[in-house]
Amino acid sequence: MSKVAVVITDMFEDSEYAQPAAAFKKAGHELTHIGLQGGVTVKGKKEGTPVKVDKTAQEVRVGDFDALLIPGGYSPDKLRVDEQVVRFVKEFVDSGKPVCLICHAPQLLITAQVLKGRKITGWKSLVQDIKNAGAEFIDQEVVEDGNLISSRSPADLPAFIRACAQKLK
Amino acid sequence: MSKVAVVITDMFEDSEYAQPAAAFKKAGHELTHIGLQGGVTVKGKKEGTPVKVDKTAQEVRVGDFDALLIPGGYSPDKLRVDEQVVRFVKEFVDSGKPVCLICHAPQLLITAQVLKGRKITGWKSLVQDIKNAGAEFIDQEVVEDGNLISSRSPADLPAFIRACAQKLK
Repeated sequence: MSKVAVVITDMFEDSEYAQPAAAFKKAGHELTHIGLQGGVTVKGKKEGTPVKVDKTAQEVRVGDFDALLIPGGYSPDKLRVDEQVVRFVKEFVDSGKPVCLICHAPQLLITAQVLKGRKITGWKSLVQDIKNAGAEFIDQEVVEDGNLISSRSPADLPAFIRACAQKLK
Repeated sequence: MSKVAVVITDMFEDSEYAQPAAAFKKAGHELTHIGLQGGVTVKGKKEGTPVKVDKTAQEVRVGDFDALLIPGGYSPDKLRVDEQVVRFVKEFVDSGKPVCLICHAPQLLITAQVLKGRKITGWKSLVQDIKNAGAEFIDQEVVEDGNLISSRSPADLPAFIRACAQKLK
């Protein structure tokens, strides 16, 4: 079973957290929620789904985990002003371990400067940001490029969860 | 007195609309609110400030206005998926008329691909996006570069409003 890190804060897209999280837990994987402040409860932007943050990025190491999940919504925009979260995401991408990202999640990888030469998809508002970061934007429900598994929106969730689950042992 | 176009939709940062709008109206300028759908009322993300959208971008021309105001919050992220809004913003920047932008507003100029070689500021989450777009990010309360007047956040509003007001006749 895998240890999955989830980087998350307020205004995440509820379903983009809740559905992968439920599927991963059902398969026996263990989730650790990493955010801007340990012990607080953050909430989704549409349904107010509550998520308890276990630790800050400063308190964890990439070596503690097997995979990373980054839900979308406006959570990535808030997370990418935190240097420790950005460092953690950068080290995760560099480690070669699976990184599952959906919707606005590529914003964190742009700030971490790890997208050059990669193939990725994401929410349509980010197309130019992704291209400007040196990545190739591909408009399909799941894009897999090495350790990066990406999807565009909640409509892609079934395919996204299938693709991510295949990467977890 | 000037005719000021405001591009705006739901989840705008309340104060970044309300304070410049009040100052411009007090000075006798006329505001036209341009959004994704005419006749609807959009709301701010913190205080729910209501703003009635007058027209879509398709229904207006840059020649109808003297200046453009783009409030921040998550409104620019929602607006930049609309091709007509992006075209309107691009034509406004190209026209040389004043464009006042604050917080997340540079996102619209990134999608419009008009930032190359420009000096600009904006919300700190956008630093890498702005650099990747070929602009120089400057961390100060107001940055003026030709017709672009930009600020970072609500804390910069007094200086932002002063700088914008000077550009309106």
